Amino acid sequence: MESTCEYARKYSKDVSLHELRDRLAEFAEVRGWDQFHSPRNLLLALVGEVGELSEIFQWKGEVAKGLPNWSSGDKEHLEEELSDVLLYLIRLADVCGLDLGQAALTKIVKNARKYPVAARQTT
Amino acid sequence: MESTCEYARKYSKDVSLHELRDRLAEFAEVRGWDQFHSPRNLLLALVGEVGELSEIFQWKGEVAKGLPNWSSGDKEHLEEELSDVLLYLIRLADVCGLDLGQAALTKIVKNARKYPVAARQTT
Amino acid sequence: MESTCEYARKYSKDVSLHELRDRLAEFAEVRGWDQFHSPRNLLLALVGEVGELSEIFQWKGEVAKGLPNWSSGDKEHLEEELSDVLLYLIRLADVCGLDLGQAALTKIVKNARKYPVAARQTT
Amino acid sequence: MESTCEYARKYSKDVSLHELRDRLAEFAEVRGWDQFHSPRNLLLALVGEVGELSEIFQWKGEVAKGLPNWSSGDKEHLEEELSDVLLYLIRLADVCGLDLGQAALTKIVKNARKYPVAARQTT
Repeated sequence: MESTCEYARKYSKDVSLHELRDRLAEFAEVRGWDQFHSPRNLLLALVGEVGELSEIFQWKGEVAKGLPNWSSGDKEHLEEELSDVLLYLIRLADVCGLDLGQAALTKIVKNARKYPVAARQTT
Repeated sequence: MESTCEYARKYSKDVSLHELRDRLAEFAEVRGWDQFHSPRNLLLALVGEVGELSEIFQWKGEVAKGLPNWSSGDKEHLEEELSDVLLYLIRLADVCGLDLGQAALTKIVKNARKYPVAARQTT
Repeated sequence: MESTCEYARKYSKDVSLHELRDRLAEFAEVRGWDQFHSPRNLLLALVGEVGELSEIFQWKGEVAKGLPNWSSGDKEHLEEELSDVLLYLIRLADVCGLDLGQAALTKIVKNARKYPVAARQTT
Repeated sequence: MESTCEYARKYSKDVSLHELRDRLAEFAEVRGWDQFHSPRNLLLALVGEVGELSEIFQWKGEVAKGLPNWSSGDKEHLEEELSDVLLYLIRLADVCGLDLGQAALTKIVKNARKYPVAARQTT
C-alpha cells in the first residue's frame, strides 16, 4: 500500500517548463516589465531568491529529508522560495533564448557518462 | 513568417518537472548517492552552481537579451550552468517532499494577485 | 586640492579584521549564540546576506562607480548589506580557526604572481 | 597555559581593511583592470566566489568548529576562498565609494541595540 506521500508524488499534476516559461513571459509582458528583464538583472534577482532560500535553512543545523517536524507554514514558505528561484531561472533562460528543459536533459545525459554506474557483482 | 528562433521556441520538446525529478531520483539511487543528498548539502551544491552561473556573466558588463555575439560554445556553457542550478533545485525540492511544479503555479497566481495588471483605457 | 571623497578615503578611521573578529566573538558569546554559530550555519547566513546585497542591485541595470544619483538612504542600505556579508565572513573564518587577514594577504601575493604586471615599453 | 591556537589567535599580524583596500586598488590599477571593476561586475564576481566557498562545504554534512580532521590542504583551500570573497567585497565597497570598516562598526552597534543582552540575575 502506498503512503499518502508516495501517492501525492505520483499523481499530482505534472507541470512543464514550457508552460511556466510561457506564463512568465506573458506575466512580464502585460505588466510592461520586459524592459527590466535583462539577463544580469534577472541573474541578480535569482541570487536574491537563493539568499532567501538559504535564510530558511540557516540556523537549523542539519535538516532531515522530508522535513519532519516542520510546520505547514514553514513548508509553504520553503515552497515559495524554491518557486521564486525556479521562476527567475526559467525567465533568465528564456530571455537568453535558451531552452532550459532541453538543456537539462542534455546535462543529465552528460552527467551519466561522466559518472557511470559501477558494475555490480553478480555472483 | 516565424523566425528560426520563434520556431524553436514553439516546437522544441516540452520537458516536465516530474520527468526531471524522477530521472534525478533514479540517477542518485543507482549511484548510491542518496546518502549525500540531504537538504542542506543540496542547497550548498545549488549555491555552488549559482556561483558558476554568475562567473559566466561577471566581467561582461550589461548583456543584451538573446545573447547576440556570444559564441555557440559560450551559450552551451551557459546552458550547462543553468541546468545545474535547475537540477539541484528540483532535487532539493524532491528530498524535502515538496512538489516544485505545483508550488511554482501557486506562486505565479499569488504574484498575479500581488501585482495586478493596470487597467487599460478602453475608449 | 583633494576632493571631499579623497579626503574621507584617506583619513577615516582604519578598522582591523582582528578588531571586528573580537567584537563579533564577544557579541555572540554574551548572547549565548555560540551554539548556533557552526560553520555551515554561518555560511548559509552569509549566502542570505549576499542575496540581500544582490537585491539592492537587481533592477538597476549597470551602475556607475561612486554611485552617482543614489540617495543617502540607498547608500546607507548598501553599507549595511556589505557589512552583514563582511561580519558573517569574519565570523565564519573565526569559528573555522582561520586568520582571515593573513589569508587575504597571502592570496594577494599569490594573485600577483599569477597575474604579473605586463612590462611596459620604455622608449 | 595558552594553546598554540589561542596563541596564534592573539599574536598573528593584524590586517586592516584600509590596507587591503589600498593594495587591491593598486593591484587593479597597475594591471589596467579598473575598467572591468564596475559595481555589478564585482558583485557577480563575489557571488562566484561565494559559490566556490559553498562547494568546499557542500557534501560534508555538518562541520564542527575548528575543522577537526580537515587536512592542511583543505584548510588552505578554504582560506583562499574566504579571502577571495573578502577581497571582492572590499573592492566592491571601494568602487562604490563606501568605507567598509566604518560601515561594519556602525552595523555592530546597530545590531547590539536590536539584540540587547538579556539582563542577568545578580541575586
